Amino acid sequence: MNVHDLPTPALLVDVDAFEHNVATMAALRPGDRLRPHVKAFKSTALARELTRAGHLGFCAATPREVVGLAAAGLGHDLLLANEVLDPRALRAMATSDARVTVAVDSEATVAAAAANGIREVLVDVDVGCFRCGCPPGEAGRVADAARAAGLEVRGVMGYEGQLMMEPTATRDERVEAAMALLLAAHADVGGDVVSGGGTGTCRENRWVTELQAGSYTLMDTAYGGTDLPFRTALSLWLTVVSVNPGGWAVADGGLKALGMDHGDPTVVDHEVVYCSDEHTTFAPGPAGTLPAVGDRVRVLPAHVDPTVAYHERMHLVRGDEVIGTWPVDLRGW
Amino acid sequence: MNVHDLPTPALLVDVDAFEHNVATMAALRPGDRLRPHVKAFKSTALARELTRAGHLGFCAATPREVVGLAAAGLGHDLLLANEVLDPRALRAMATSDARVTVAVDSEATVAAAAANGIREVLVDVDVGCFRCGCPPGEAGRVADAARAAGLEVRGVMGYEGQLMMEPTATRDERVEAAMALLLAAHADVGGDVVSGGGTGTCRENRWVTELQAGSYTLMDTAYGGTDLPFRTALSLWLTVVSVNPGGWAVADGGLKALGMDHGDPTVVDHEVVYCSDEHTTFAPGPAGTLPAVGDRVRVLPAHVDPTVAYHERMHLVRGDEVIGTWPVDLRGW
Repeated sequence: MNVHDLPTPALLVDVDAFEHNVATMAALRPGDRLRPHVKAFKSTALARELTRAGHLGFCAATPREVVGLAAAGLGHDLLLANEVLDPRALRAMATSDARVTVAVDSEATVAAAAANGIREVLVDVDVGCFRCGCPPGEAGRVADAARAAGLEVRGVMGYEGQLMMEPTATRDERVEAAMALLLAAHADVGGDVVSGGGTGTCRENRWVTELQAGSYTLMDTAYGGTDLPFRTALSLWLTVVSVNPGGWAVADGGLKALGMDHGDPTVVDHEVVYCSDEHTTFAPGPAGTLPAVGDRVRVLPAHVDPTVAYHERMHLVRGDEVIGTWPVDLRGW
Repeated sequence: MNVHDLPTPALLVDVDAFEHNVATMAALRPGDRLRPHVKAFKSTALARELTRAGHLGFCAATPREVVGLAAAGLGHDLLLANEVLDPRALRAMATSDARVTVAVDSEATVAAAAANGIREVLVDVDVGCFRCGCPPGEAGRVADAARAAGLEVRGVMGYEGQLMMEPTATRDERVEAAMALLLAAHADVGGDVVSGGGTGTCRENRWVTELQAGSYTLMDTAYGGTDLPFRTALSLWLTVVSVNPGGWAVADGGLKALGMDHGDPTVVDHEVVYCSDEHTTFAPGPAGTLPAVGDRVRVLPAHVDPTVAYHERMHLVRGDEVIGTWPVDLRGW
């Protein structure tokens, strides 16, 4: 199928850019030194491509992602890098056809995991992200509680999310300082695993045994402003449905097709005016021209994760040819 | 079921607030003087409640919303208040079990509608929103083209979206000015229908024959800052999964459960620090306290439409009791 025959709005994955990104990261972090984070793309089909690149373990943000990966036969070693208290969600993961490890950061999360069949945990440590994770000095106590409850403690995790967009000049020293907190906690906790990092720190974070990165596969314009060696592979494909002689055009996708927390998307070759629910209004770019009604435009999302979560599928394209479709099958809760 | 037994994240609809909103709008705009806009809530179950309040015609932003309403037996009089060129989408609407009217604003959209079985149209007129709609002076020409193509022209529509959050002091005169443009176009176009307006101008817009409002049913914090007579009915129900002695807590829903284009949501009784993909981090509010791990918190979305579009269902609550569930069955494209 030609890409111009796709119904719009449609998410497109540039296969060449995707393959470049996968190969580049596999060279940086081969095999189980990378634990790809499925929250970025929520697709078992995409995850399966990553197993072909040698990464057999995955990281997830929701129990549904874990259960869906297991059901797709991708349950070799799954980490829920998040705290969960819901007994149903914990039992669903515990009884799935997968090796499942969950993050714990308190006595309450330890007790919930142990009571609902979870066997393995990582102690989640706060390394400055203002999110989940116990203070580094409490990690040993959480690990003791987990072992007392009969859980196997595989090690620690800590996400330096605050440093994903850190300027190059200071990134190295700040990642080192964050990981010093994690390693101090690891000394108290024990175990083989030190899990952390992300796309933004994939080169600087030399301390984790496994990197939790997902955005690198598809990329977005927020990461595009950095010096990372990955290419923008994801775009939103829209049809121009209205052109106004006042000097603007309107395409048929907007707030409900794009994560907006990092701001407006980029309309290639044009200037975004604003997005509304089902529209993106844009003005001429440097070339000074607008497309015609019926033309297609390519829009680059500012944040890939919440963009993908709005869509039912992604289409794989090479040039103008659609060569496949990946269901986004791990959405929702 | 008690609301504390719901898996989180979950969307809750406060039934009393919803019923207040429906009754208040039905008093302002009874029967077919309101054409509720389903884009705000994307649920045929909610739409059916509005038919009980006397509103039998609906407004939609996507062909899938139109086809879904028709399949649910709600096809009395459906308006796609949007321009569509895709032949498959137009034919799906034309062959649905519904009276379907679509918006047109150009010769291209007229030709696409006529070629794919659509029988009735409204001429969409730009009234200052920088979105779809022809300039008012061109509306007559678009209507002529539609009639020449064999289409029935029911009238005009024009959405003064730029005035939905307009301050009270200037709202009346600015709505009048926008509607003067629409009425001038109507004089050239003819037909019985003058469709426009929204929740924010539900009292001031005295010129339309039917008001296109949807947000009033559920409301959000953006509209909550206005003087509208509607109550916040929608909230996101989250579980606190982590509490840090540094002075923050983390709940289990974030960017993928909330439309973020209007900014951060409100965590009731607390201060939002930031939202990430599956988390909202918050600090103590005026009372100076944080909840405990396992407690639930209520989060008020800043923008209802893109929030609902992330969810598979809404739960109806009265006090702590869950008295029903509405599938969000009109999502996607």
